[in-house]
Amino acid sequence: MLKLEIISIGTAYPAWIKDALSEYQKRLGNQCKLSLKEIPIVKNNKKGNSSEKKLEEGNRIESFIDRSSYIVAMDQKGSQWTSESLAKKLVAWSLSKSKFQFLIGGPEGLSSAVLDRSDIIWSLSKLTLPHALARLVLLEQLYRAFMINNKHPYHR
Amino acid sequence: MLKLEIISIGTAYPAWIKDALSEYQKRLGNQCKLSLKEIPIVKNNKKGNSSEKKLEEGNRIESFIDRSSYIVAMDQKGSQWTSESLAKKLVAWSLSKSKFQFLIGGPEGLSSAVLDRSDIIWSLSKLTLPHALARLVLLEQLYRAFMINNKHPYHR
Repeated sequence: MLKLEIISIGTAYPAWIKDALSEYQKRLGNQCKLSLKEIPIVKNNKKGNSSEKKLEEGNRIESFIDRSSYIVAMDQKGSQWTSESLAKKLVAWSLSKSKFQFLIGGPEGLSSAVLDRSDIIWSLSKLTLPHALARLVLLEQLYRAFMINNKHPYHR
Repeated sequence: MLKLEIISIGTAYPAWIKDALSEYQKRLGNQCKLSLKEIPIVKNNKKGNSSEKKLEEGNRIESFIDRSSYIVAMDQKGSQWTSESLAKKLVAWSLSKSKFQFLIGGPEGLSSAVLDRSDIIWSLSKLTLPHALARLVLLEQLYRAFMINNKHPYHR
């Protein structure tokens, strides 16, 4: 069974986002082995400027990167895909890898070091999404991709 | 005060989306006069094929369209904007109009009749979003646009 891991910066979320995530976690959990890792943001009082924070948060993310997995960085610099093309990509990646890691930065975004060591960079939208909402859209799209590949009527 | 109206097809949502919407409704409600209109989808047993459903849902939406307002259709056929460019557009539209209507279709999308009579077509993403999630992203982006225009640190 495919392993999907979503690694994101930030641990404080409103109650609704927890409910929303757990709904898609449950659905997606039937399709793959899913895990969500939440890494605390670097506090303002610890690292002064935002590039230092991004760097430190990048280091924290890198410590969770598994060299054997296919690494997808979520960043506005990336290219956009349709839901159908995401579904095809999941199939293509799974020919060589059995684990995919999706990386979502905090408000500062992902560090260049993290972007450089990723296999691909994916942008959900031209819009700036709050990272909690980005994670929700990602989970829904992954679920949708499985439904597309299963020819399930969820996606028409 | 600017009037914003979000007209969407579909009335059944999970609890978390209601909580999420009401959070942003509350925030956005301090920035503008906001109303959300939910129009029931056309049931399968009433209209057989999906183009008939789309047409009928389009008629229902059209009955809520206010000729004096600026009409924004949400559709993947539209162009994508950054959050910053949405903020600028809100300012530009408000020079000639005091009410904006945002139209979100059901699973079938918006009818051509509705698209034709809209002032502009906006696409949130290349991805196919479920309409409940599209409405949430729209509300968050409208709130973000007000924060950008207010130079509030919510958007950096």
